[in-house]
Amino acid sequence: MRVFVINPNTTESVTDHIRRELEKIKQPDTELTVVNPEHGPVSIESVYDETLAGAPTLELVRRANEEGYDVIVLACFSDPALDAAKEVSDIPVIGIEEATLHMAAMLGHKFSITTAFSNRVPTRELHTRLRGVESAYASTLVMNMSVLDMDANPEEAKARIQELARKAVQEDGAEVIVLGCAGLTGYAEDIERKLGVVVLDPTSVAFKIAEAIADLGLRHSKIGRFATPPVKEIK
Amino acid sequence: MRVFVINPNTTESVTDHIRRELEKIKQPDTELTVVNPEHGPVSIESVYDETLAGAPTLELVRRANEEGYDVIVLACFSDPALDAAKEVSDIPVIGIEEATLHMAAMLGHKFSITTAFSNRVPTRELHTRLRGVESAYASTLVMNMSVLDMDANPEEAKARIQELARKAVQEDGAEVIVLGCAGLTGYAEDIERKLGVVVLDPTSVAFKIAEAIADLGLRHSKIGRFATPPVKEIK
Amino acid sequence: MRVFVINPNTTESVTDHIRRELEKIKQPDTELTVVNPEHGPVSIESVYDETLAGAPTLELVRRANEEGYDVIVLACFSDPALDAAKEVSDIPVIGIEEATLHMAAMLGHKFSITTAFSNRVPTRELHTRLRGVESAYASTLVMNMSVLDMDANPEEAKARIQELARKAVQEDGAEVIVLGCAGLTGYAEDIERKLGVVVLDPTSVAFKIAEAIADLGLRHSKIGRFATPPVKEIK
Amino acid sequence: MRVFVINPNTTESVTDHIRRELEKIKQPDTELTVVNPEHGPVSIESVYDETLAGAPTLELVRRANEEGYDVIVLACFSDPALDAAKEVSDIPVIGIEEATLHMAAMLGHKFSITTAFSNRVPTRELHTRLRGVESAYASTLVMNMSVLDMDANPEEAKARIQELARKAVQEDGAEVIVLGCAGLTGYAEDIERKLGVVVLDPTSVAFKIAEAIADLGLRHSKIGRFATPPVKEIK
Amino acid sequence: MRVFVINPNTTESVTDHIRRELEKIKQPDTELTVVNPEHGPVSIESVYDETLAGAPTLELVRRANEEGYDVIVLACFSDPALDAAKEVSDIPVIGIEEATLHMAAMLGHKFSITTAFSNRVPTRELHTRLRGVESAYASTLVMNMSVLDMDANPEEAKARIQELARKAVQEDGAEVIVLGCAGLTGYAEDIERKLGVVVLDPTSVAFKIAEAIADLGLRHSKIGRFATPPVKEIK
Amino acid sequence: MRVFVINPNTTESVTDHIRRELEKIKQPDTELTVVNPEHGPVSIESVYDETLAGAPTLELVRRANEEGYDVIVLACFSDPALDAAKEVSDIPVIGIEEATLHMAAMLGHKFSITTAFSNRVPTRELHTRLRGVESAYASTLVMNMSVLDMDANPEEAKARIQELARKAVQEDGAEVIVLGCAGLTGYAEDIERKLGVVVLDPTSVAFKIAEAIADLGLRHSKIGRFATPPVKEIK
Repeated sequence: MRVFVINPNTTESVTDHIRRELEKIKQPDTELTVVNPEHGPVSIESVYDETLAGAPTLELVRRANEEGYDVIVLACFSDPALDAAKEVSDIPVIGIEEATLHMAAMLGHKFSITTAFSNRVPTRELHTRLRGVESAYASTLVMNMSVLDMDANPEEAKARIQELARKAVQEDGAEVIVLGCAGLTGYAEDIERKLGVVVLDPTSVAFKIAEAIADLGLRHSKIGRFATPPVKEIK
Repeated sequence: MRVFVINPNTTESVTDHIRRELEKIKQPDTELTVVNPEHGPVSIESVYDETLAGAPTLELVRRANEEGYDVIVLACFSDPALDAAKEVSDIPVIGIEEATLHMAAMLGHKFSITTAFSNRVPTRELHTRLRGVESAYASTLVMNMSVLDMDANPEEAKARIQELARKAVQEDGAEVIVLGCAGLTGYAEDIERKLGVVVLDPTSVAFKIAEAIADLGLRHSKIGRFATPPVKEIK
Repeated sequence: MRVFVINPNTTESVTDHIRRELEKIKQPDTELTVVNPEHGPVSIESVYDETLAGAPTLELVRRANEEGYDVIVLACFSDPALDAAKEVSDIPVIGIEEATLHMAAMLGHKFSITTAFSNRVPTRELHTRLRGVESAYASTLVMNMSVLDMDANPEEAKARIQELARKAVQEDGAEVIVLGCAGLTGYAEDIERKLGVVVLDPTSVAFKIAEAIADLGLRHSKIGRFATPPVKEIK
Repeated sequence: MRVFVINPNTTESVTDHIRRELEKIKQPDTELTVVNPEHGPVSIESVYDETLAGAPTLELVRRANEEGYDVIVLACFSDPALDAAKEVSDIPVIGIEEATLHMAAMLGHKFSITTAFSNRVPTRELHTRLRGVESAYASTLVMNMSVLDMDANPEEAKARIQELARKAVQEDGAEVIVLGCAGLTGYAEDIERKLGVVVLDPTSVAFKIAEAIADLGLRHSKIGRFATPPVKEIK
Repeated sequence: MRVFVINPNTTESVTDHIRRELEKIKQPDTELTVVNPEHGPVSIESVYDETLAGAPTLELVRRANEEGYDVIVLACFSDPALDAAKEVSDIPVIGIEEATLHMAAMLGHKFSITTAFSNRVPTRELHTRLRGVESAYASTLVMNMSVLDMDANPEEAKARIQELARKAVQEDGAEVIVLGCAGLTGYAEDIERKLGVVVLDPTSVAFKIAEAIADLGLRHSKIGRFATPPVKEIK
Repeated sequence: MRVFVINPNTTESVTDHIRRELEKIKQPDTELTVVNPEHGPVSIESVYDETLAGAPTLELVRRANEEGYDVIVLACFSDPALDAAKEVSDIPVIGIEEATLHMAAMLGHKFSITTAFSNRVPTRELHTRLRGVESAYASTLVMNMSVLDMDANPEEAKARIQELARKAVQEDGAEVIVLGCAGLTGYAEDIERKLGVVVLDPTSVAFKIAEAIADLGLRHSKIGRFATPPVKEIK
């Protein structure tokens, strides 16, 4: 099986981090490719960033289709351009946000999601509603740390998550904590051990779901919402 | 008052059509600018098209801010890049879809929306949910006509809308019909007269709401969902 | 254009206050009439008050229709008798609550509403649900001041709103504050300047929406929910 | 126990009909009073009618409180002025719509409601949402018969209900049929026998719930939504 | 009328407690039987307990049908096996949770429910959603007392409920308090007097609703959700 | 990895069928055990059947925990006793319904579910709501074939599903078809090829998700909804 993982931001150290973590958990016979676009924002922390990352990400989606991969993982927690990717792709595309929110809804009554800054709380709420899992949404936990800072200071990031997660369990009824950033891959186990609560690392969760989907021979439906777009002139 | 209207697709005849219609209804002292991006899809009929239109549209949003306009109207019924536009804009940005769906919810119990092809029905449903007006949603009416065809064959387009709208009133409980395409500007009155039901032309509705917002000195809130994005490197 | 504004309570000083504020923002060629019924409660602070104000308000709606006005604004934040008014009116009727809640849902992720006393919190919640905008509802802010006290002590009212609004932004995720009383017309700008958040004055917002609706030649749909009632004996 | 039943319309034959039916099912020691206001519409078939019936109905609610009744039943399926009645009443007030919709939600998965004309379908939908039982709502069945016609032609009314109910069971998933009019009291059993489905007569259902509430010594809560309104001048 | 009340746990002192309380409020001519299964858990404080109590409870439901009772009341606040009971029963079955939540939704804007331990909060939320009354749900109040402890220490239980209920009124907007345990039968009046808020004892409420249903000759619908199960081999 | 699959009904041919199908798709190093209880109904087609299957299923859940399995799959589409199983289990338990509904919500805009008889339509609706994925629910498709008949006549079952699925795509907006019965394992590929739409076999989907969960070292949260039940006497 050949899995194509796209980090939609342009920071290669994040791409490398993701590759290292996924190498540890992939099935032995899985061939793993992790890439990022050449152009676009160095991190994705606004809908503006998501929009700029859109077209370059879709180029990579096309490439994965042309090169015969079995499944694509979109490794940014906002799932930028996910619906467009499903439209242009014939192979399944898994967003790490959608896969993880659905998993979280199965593993506990309610989940809380960590995020970088308070301006992203509405995005987390809206996406939870868009995915149709709002009844399992407890709260969003604001780390007040940029995505690149989290990458640079893992221990500080883990400490903040622990503190916020403990509060979410006590006050918001959270039973599962979702690490709302692809760059936090590999942090879950550590936090979970200290916290005694289920912590989900979206990149890992989505990657294993992607392997399962490829093993099952599944794909997304191409007859409606994700139908291949009409061919037309792009000026 | 200076209003900046963006047609996010790259077909100038549509831009001209919109300009002509809005000239007829603008307040006497309103200065009207209607533009389209140079690059991007010639029409917007998929989330893929919306994604490609995103970055060029945001460039125009920046230009309107720099050139001191009072309010921006985004004239494509899918409101592509609307949230990102609100993030990067200090002046209000009105999407024709959001303005029209809220208006429709006031003018009748339920509304139906026309769309080009059946693959867009899920988009209409999702956007209605995103706007938070799903309790007023009756149905989406599939015209089976491309956006450019509607522009080229207005009488055929009107005839199809009439037939679909009549059915929506009888079978879906629709009390208001929303023309789900910016290119249909100016068709509403004709159809309404023949149908005896309220028909909304989104570009006109949003334009007058934009004038009202500018008159009131209102803007969108910049403290959360639409906060100005962090400055960062775009590779 | 001729706009007919109804203050459904019987306190003329409130009617005069509304007239003064709307004179400042009306289009130059708008002819403005602001009236209140002769009979009914002096303020509207309960569903009981709303019910007593119903029949006298509907008399004024009839009068506006007979006298050839273009649009009616119902200037009480509970929109008393709004649906009945739409039934008996052939010209559009805009409730200040419905127009403002829909506007608030466009200008920010969530809104909070000020109200006089805690017994009105359920009304605010129910009306938000009835208008179909509950996903944008953050909270109701209790002023503990009667409507007539707010009219008599504007500075005290503004100070309380500021304090409550600040808390709503920090704790409830509010991005827009709605002044939930027609008598607060004209207070928004002052509070907004001090607070740095969007503050909506419902009477002003609804009035400009009414002008836009009249300019567009729109009316509410008369084929279902707002159909003209059957003629019958009223004993 | 003393039960005070208010028919909010001014047609005495309907009041007499209700009295006759309730006499048959009341507990032996229940003292039954059934009245209607002197002034107001002869039937209630629009929100306009509901609004006109409001103030006279509230007068009767006050009288029941003054005369020491134990519980009030509001016998019109639109529950006109119900919230206002609960505000001004210290004894419990039961609306036949609310009591019946909650009963229907217990007796089957989904219910359908009969109504006079198609303009009332939105009211049925809105009230179902207001009562918070929309997940059990299947459909509204339009009889195309005025309320007074139903009273005058019981057999014709029953035949239409049977036909509509059969269709609702087959096509809408209805498991319970609610007769959406107080004047249909006493028709349920007959229809139920012919149809093999549960048919609810709202006036009877609400009356027995009222007796149960009085027996239990319950009342509605007076601390929030139904708090006694502030005393004020009514001009 | 013959009413059959099932306490689904196997603690006879609770059964006796329920019988004593219901004897006080039953109609004079009601013949009351209160029983519990021989086998199963001594109290019901988890979904595991509910599952174990299921089959023995259904045996008693069959017995009530065979012995010609008019109506069955299931007296455990989790309504264990309620849907299965309605499937196998031709006489109406009333769960004390469903009857009480619907009653609570009529008597106030929002209700809070007491529960034994925090692990049951999700169950209360889920059941409220299942009953379709989630819009009236305020909160669940955790007593941190086992069901058998509540039975053994009524004064301690009442004191805790009072404290929690006071907080729910002030902070959660609760207007009605639901005692979420069949074993608390008879405590409501005392608490209500001290608290000034409406307190519902589910067993009493459901019992009187059951009498009303039997008086009305109603039953649950047997054509869909509660259809009699197909006869089959049970190994 | 050791996976324990429970067929909650007592028909061994169904158990054998499931084992054969899962052997084909398991990871090479997965040790697969598929069992059914000795006692209980031979098929599960009602809530009554689900209730009877509950206690015996929980015995098997305990056994899997004692014997050191890594993950449990509950292979009946109604997920009988799933919450109770999660309470008593320290290893993850995956219900085939919950896993498949969440997968379906990712692979298309809306899904339809096949079921045996029309009495099960409400169960499908309720479970979809319980799982929190109701916004992706299109319809339930009634096969009018018992579970054992489906097992005995695979070609007839496939033909009926094809016909119903085609209709669901055209009329209900379904983009994914869920085979709502564990016994249909292995039918999906055939139907999918003929239909051109995505068809999900719940047992296969849930099994691969279970492997992914075990690979990730995940478990369900034990701090709230699925907390281990208090130890108590079971008479």
